[in-house]
Amino acid sequence: MKNCKFQVGLIRVLTSEDPEFVNMHGRQIMEAYPTVEVESRCIPDQYEGIHSKELGEIAVPKIVKLAKEAFADKDMILVSCADDPGVKEIRAALPGMRVTGGGETTVGIALGHSEKVGVLGITDYAPEAYVRILGDKMVANIRPEGVYSTLDLMTPQGRKSCMEAGLKLKEMGAGVIALGCTGLATIGIARELEETCGIPVIDPVLAEGLFAYFASIR
Amino acid sequence: MKNCKFQVGLIRVLTSEDPEFVNMHGRQIMEAYPTVEVESRCIPDQYEGIHSKELGEIAVPKIVKLAKEAFADKDMILVSCADDPGVKEIRAALPGMRVTGGGETTVGIALGHSEKVGVLGITDYAPEAYVRILGDKMVANIRPEGVYSTLDLMTPQGRKSCMEAGLKLKEMGAGVIALGCTGLATIGIARELEETCGIPVIDPVLAEGLFAYFASIR
Repeated sequence: MKNCKFQVGLIRVLTSEDPEFVNMHGRQIMEAYPTVEVESRCIPDQYEGIHSKELGEIAVPKIVKLAKEAFADKDMILVSCADDPGVKEIRAALPGMRVTGGGETTVGIALGHSEKVGVLGITDYAPEAYVRILGDKMVANIRPEGVYSTLDLMTPQGRKSCMEAGLKLKEMGAGVIALGCTGLATIGIARELEETCGIPVIDPVLAEGLFAYFASIR
Repeated sequence: MKNCKFQVGLIRVLTSEDPEFVNMHGRQIMEAYPTVEVESRCIPDQYEGIHSKELGEIAVPKIVKLAKEAFADKDMILVSCADDPGVKEIRAALPGMRVTGGGETTVGIALGHSEKVGVLGITDYAPEAYVRILGDKMVANIRPEGVYSTLDLMTPQGRKSCMEAGLKLKEMGAGVIALGCTGLATIGIARELEETCGIPVIDPVLAEGLFAYFASIR
C-alpha cells in the first residue's frame, strides 16, 4: 500500500547515538498528529547541542548539509529547536521546500492566544525568534531559579521552580506561556504548567508539529 | 456511547435562516479536524453581517449573549469572523472558557510561516487584529480590483483579480498571505491562491479550527 502520510524530516541539533533520544520529538509529533510521518536525524559532533552563539555558528552548516542530503525529498523539514538554527539557510538552499522550526511556530501560536506572551526557558535570554517576532508583546523571559538545563527540571525542586516561574509570568500579565526550549517539551512540563497557571502553555515540539499537520491537511 | 470529541460552539456573525449556511464553517472545521465537534449558531437580526464599525457595535452584545446562553458548557468558543468581534468581551463574560476568533488565529499562524505577511481581503483596511498584532510585519493589505463582497469572487473576473492581488503581495515581498475575511474561506480560494502564488495562504476558518484542534489534543 502506498504511504499517503505527510512526510516530515526532523533535525535534532544535539548529537546522540541513542535512537530513542533522536526519535523522541518525532514520536511526540506522530502521536499528536496522525496524518504526519516523521523521520528524525541528528547533526554529527554536537554533543553539547547549541547553548552559545559559537556553537550555533558551528551547527548551521551541518544542519543545512543534513537537510540537503537526507531530507530533500520530504514534504517538509522541521529544525526541532526553539532557536530555529539553520531554518533561514535551509529555505535558501532548498527553494520550494516547506521549512520551519520550534521557535517561530511557538511564537506564532502563542500570539494567536494572547498578545501578552510570557517566555519560560532555561536561558536568561529568549531565543532570537521570540525577541524578533514578539517585540513588546513579550511580557518577560524567565529562567526558573536554579534551573540551567533540562536535567535540573527533572528534580522536584526544579519542577517547583518552574511552576513558580509560570505563576510569576501570569502575575506579570501573561495571557499565554511560550516555552523557550524544546527540552521542556521532552519532559512534558507544558500540561503541568497549564494546570498550575490556568493559561495556555505552548511547547515547541507540539507547535512545530502543528504546522506540519496544518500543511498536511491543505 | 459517550461522545469524547472536543466540543466547540461556533458563532456566525451574519444572520441566516439557512442551516447549511450557518453550519458551513463548522462543517469545514470538522472535515479538517476529526477530533473536533462543532455546533454553529448565528446572531439574530444581523442580515448584513459586520461591514462597518456601527454594525460591529450592534453585534457585540448579541455575540456575548449567544455565547453565554448557548455555549457556556462547551470546551471552546470560536467567533468565526476575521474581525474577532466580541472575543475580548466573551473572555470577560465567561472566565476560564477558551475563546478565539478568525483574525488573531490567522495572524498567529501567518507569523509562524513568515514575518512578511500580505493581507488579502474585501475591504480597504485590514481587520483590527491584523493591524494590531502584525504592526510593521504587514507588507500590505490589498482588496482585489472590482471586488467588494464575497459574491464578486464567484465570477471569473473576481477570481482573476484575486489571483492578481496575491501575486502583487508576493512581489511586494510577502512570504505568506493571510486572508482578511472568512468569506474567502467559504469559497475555497486559499488553495487556488497558494498554487498560483507559491506561498502559503492562511484562511481564517481553517486557522480558528486549528486552534480548537490544538486545544483538543493537549
